[in-house]
Amino acid sequence: MLIDSINSPADLKNLSIQQLNSLAGEIREGLFNRLTKKGGHFGPNFGIVEATIALHYVFNSPEDKIVFDVSHQCYPHKMLTGRAYGFFDESRFSEVSGYTNPEESEHDFFNVGHTSTSVSLASGLAKARDLTGGKENVIAVIGDGSLSGGEALEGLDFAGEMTTNFIIVVNDNDMSIAENHGGLYKNLRELRETDGKAENNLFRAMGLDYVYCGQGNNIEALIETFKKVKDTDHPVVVHIKTLKGAGYKPAEENKEIWHWTNPFNRETGERPAQNPDNLNSLTAQFLLKKMEKDPRVAFICPAVPGNFGFNKENRLKAGSQFIDTGIAEEHAIALASAMAKGGAKPVFGTHSSFIQRTYDQLNQDLCINKNPATLLVNTASVWGMRDITHLGIFDIPLMSNLPELVYLAPTNIEEYFAMLEWSIEQTQYPVAIRMPCNGIIHSTLPQDTDYSDLNKYKITQKGSKTAILALGDFFQLGEKTADLIEKETGIRPTLINPRYITGLDKELLTSLAADHTKIITLEDGILDGGFGQKIASFYGNSSVKVYNFGLKKEFIDRYDPSDILKENHLTPQQIWEEVK
Amino acid sequence: MLIDSINSPADLKNLSIQQLNSLAGEIREGLFNRLTKKGGHFGPNFGIVEATIALHYVFNSPEDKIVFDVSHQCYPHKMLTGRAYGFFDESRFSEVSGYTNPEESEHDFFNVGHTSTSVSLASGLAKARDLTGGKENVIAVIGDGSLSGGEALEGLDFAGEMTTNFIIVVNDNDMSIAENHGGLYKNLRELRETDGKAENNLFRAMGLDYVYCGQGNNIEALIETFKKVKDTDHPVVVHIKTLKGAGYKPAEENKEIWHWTNPFNRETGERPAQNPDNLNSLTAQFLLKKMEKDPRVAFICPAVPGNFGFNKENRLKAGSQFIDTGIAEEHAIALASAMAKGGAKPVFGTHSSFIQRTYDQLNQDLCINKNPATLLVNTASVWGMRDITHLGIFDIPLMSNLPELVYLAPTNIEEYFAMLEWSIEQTQYPVAIRMPCNGIIHSTLPQDTDYSDLNKYKITQKGSKTAILALGDFFQLGEKTADLIEKETGIRPTLINPRYITGLDKELLTSLAADHTKIITLEDGILDGGFGQKIASFYGNSSVKVYNFGLKKEFIDRYDPSDILKENHLTPQQIWEEVK
Repeated sequence: MLIDSINSPADLKNLSIQQLNSLAGEIREGLFNRLTKKGGHFGPNFGIVEATIALHYVFNSPEDKIVFDVSHQCYPHKMLTGRAYGFFDESRFSEVSGYTNPEESEHDFFNVGHTSTSVSLASGLAKARDLTGGKENVIAVIGDGSLSGGEALEGLDFAGEMTTNFIIVVNDNDMSIAENHGGLYKNLRELRETDGKAENNLFRAMGLDYVYCGQGNNIEALIETFKKVKDTDHPVVVHIKTLKGAGYKPAEENKEIWHWTNPFNRETGERPAQNPDNLNSLTAQFLLKKMEKDPRVAFICPAVPGNFGFNKENRLKAGSQFIDTGIAEEHAIALASAMAKGGAKPVFGTHSSFIQRTYDQLNQDLCINKNPATLLVNTASVWGMRDITHLGIFDIPLMSNLPELVYLAPTNIEEYFAMLEWSIEQTQYPVAIRMPCNGIIHSTLPQDTDYSDLNKYKITQKGSKTAILALGDFFQLGEKTADLIEKETGIRPTLINPRYITGLDKELLTSLAADHTKIITLEDGILDGGFGQKIASFYGNSSVKVYNFGLKKEFIDRYDPSDILKENHLTPQQIWEEVK
Repeated sequence: MLIDSINSPADLKNLSIQQLNSLAGEIREGLFNRLTKKGGHFGPNFGIVEATIALHYVFNSPEDKIVFDVSHQCYPHKMLTGRAYGFFDESRFSEVSGYTNPEESEHDFFNVGHTSTSVSLASGLAKARDLTGGKENVIAVIGDGSLSGGEALEGLDFAGEMTTNFIIVVNDNDMSIAENHGGLYKNLRELRETDGKAENNLFRAMGLDYVYCGQGNNIEALIETFKKVKDTDHPVVVHIKTLKGAGYKPAEENKEIWHWTNPFNRETGERPAQNPDNLNSLTAQFLLKKMEKDPRVAFICPAVPGNFGFNKENRLKAGSQFIDTGIAEEHAIALASAMAKGGAKPVFGTHSSFIQRTYDQLNQDLCINKNPATLLVNTASVWGMRDITHLGIFDIPLMSNLPELVYLAPTNIEEYFAMLEWSIEQTQYPVAIRMPCNGIIHSTLPQDTDYSDLNKYKITQKGSKTAILALGDFFQLGEKTADLIEKETGIRPTLINPRYITGLDKELLTSLAADHTKIITLEDGILDGGFGQKIASFYGNSSVKVYNFGLKKEFIDRYDPSDILKENHLTPQQIWEEVK
């Protein structure tokens, strides 16, 4: 295979167009090999094969610097920069991550997982080049709906004032994860339909030069286009039209579900059926029922509708009560706050990792104004997403220290829906709910329907000596630890479901001191700035001993949750060892 | 005066154009009265007098909803909505805040202090209107450089897909606080120069309808324009050209320094001279010297250069080593990270309140990539900015729980510059420095030059029984408390300068337990998620008692720092009372 002779992009330079086209076929084989067996981002990578070959043919990486965004479209780039083994050799899949990664290669400049960052990051490399006297090309590649994110637009605006070499490749496949949203995508369509000649042009309006290439899956056309802008002395946007999923019919035809895939059958396109009882689907069903009964209920989702059960069919059912803002988390929070102010009942949902984009909007637009919007925080857990750029373990320090916010941690499915029902209907507080992420755990006990008496923890088992405050997803760990302690000591510990992450039940905590000498806190996230440290502070000047259990403050990557739990002493046995 | 008869915007409707013009003069008198005596935002309010009158003449607030951004341009709006006393009656100045405030009036829909939010917030009111069957106009007013902020651009993009009434008034005075930055402002200039007819049009490219009014300080022309768009059935941008500071020559001529003013002399335009030894100026001098010696050093500032001593003269001196990104904090952090990656030595600076915009960029673009950029966090203190929307008391929980970041808290000017010098030259860590904010406190002691041995706290006074860990700006409070305790008990307490907010000196903390029974922590920010709680957690299972002192987690507004300190038991006497 040709790919075997490509150890670095320099090895591309002497290939003919015909050979480059063969190489594209081989790269797709590599993609199939990894994705059918391991899963990963499908559509973005199949769409950008030719553009990646052309980029590396024309430019000289790593002297010329290419920054990918969303970097989940970097698989072909990895194959051309000495990491083909991560795609062709199943035993080495795990050596290569799904995003650009400077630890893997000098051709990768940043760990990039959150979208909309490449223009800003690449402009920084360009500025550093100018200050240090370099002459290389700096290229930002942006695609998959990333343009609508605030950081990308800020970056474009900044680039519009640059006066030296800077190339922005807009990989336009007409899709985010789901369809694109926002007025600027209408403009991209206009530009595609007029071969780049439409009068309205977002990029020119931002002060940028502009080149269009309608044949974004044609290596020869792309090479010609990139050669035109190579060594430019000013910033220029190269708008290329590509086909998401190109080269695999099922993916070309159903772009949304083939954005990312689990292992699948290449011949049939069959993928393992999703359990229809997953929490995302149940959440969508719940919200659709609420919407049907009350036209004021709406679900706002920044570009991840499928992860809340809002597939095409459900979006259609919800109609104008479903709002996909596109990749625009900041806007989405302000929108939710204002909708609540205006008398609607908005529910916002995204992942723990992506809500990081909204700290200031949570603080300013939502909490200062105390509007009763509901926020659902998904995959907020050690069992959530497991790439270094997509961790769900930072939202407790991020959100629980915001004044006015009520952040709830349900411990089972019934409690989750009871909290959600209450939150939608109440009009006093901004409320966030940390969605369970440790499997579908049911409770047969009756659930409270009113959570407005804030910060009342729930004693689920009354004991003595030791009390365990087991938050949210770690409640089951608390149960197991309580059983173990009872078994080991013969004394039944008290088990508490704190429910509220954002405040202390001082009355209960004070009363515990009467017949408990040890308090164990368990939380499914980093300890720093979290729940347990507040408990430790509360008991700081008392004789009660407090033991905080949770995760260490660190970035972890492609981890096995059970390893991480063990490393952090989070098995019942380890907890007992430390406390006894 | 006419203004005396205006109790609500309804009272404007029967006035003639001539009377409305007289009213504009009266409003400026009100502005002069308050601003000469109390200070506040000058240029933005003088520029928007006519537009505010025209808005309230044409639309029917509060049924029609007007959302101001940056809401520091809302003073004329306040005068027309029953709050003229807050401008004409000195004894009532304090009843009216400098921003829109729903607690003051039904004509204010949100507390807005951070910029770039009105489009998103107003679009939420419009969406709620549509879901609840309303018919009113919803108007977002945006100005003063706010358009470059990511949230504003996300909001415009979202508005481009709306299909019902929505009006966006772009108050274009060609300025941020300093001059505008970013390619989109070139487009605004083109539009101003062509009477709105330029081919490139950012708003149309975002999918929005567009109307231009070049006479933004002419009530009659504005009324005509607003009447055209009233009751529109789709989103439309009304781009009005106004003169910042209109009606006061010194402000028209020097827009930057008259953006905001202290009390001043109206006749002469004289304002109290700034102490040239303030920390901002000293910081600029320090950085300019570094820049002169090393072309790789650069200062990045999102639209608040004056607050870091970078006045026009200093910006000129710094040349291409000074970068004002405009209002674009997210971009600025990614830029800083990438510049560090590219071998430059970037220093980023903004206020504690505005760095809130960048949590995700700190986490993803900077800390995961561990690039050695330096961040300066200004007014991070109870003595910082004191409006509810501009508090400097949340940055410790925001930043200190990020993995890989080194967040330093200097306790005096010399230590601050020693840390800054080290940070710029080191290449291992992303480093943030919490700038002192409790006056210019000098130290004659020699300062460390190397801070790379992370999390080593400094014992500044060795004692016994009680140890005080006094962080950053609260170090002097720690000294006073130590003196008091020694006086009261005859036993000298240990006093410690922790220096590192982001980690524990476990060795030192462990050794303290040998001869100390009480540990006091002091921090200049909210306690929740902060420094002291980590200390409490560390000692949780020991017999050492820990007392955390800091601020309660709450939004405070227009406060007196000494009141807040007392309320939070933060005088030496109160601390001693609680600990003894």
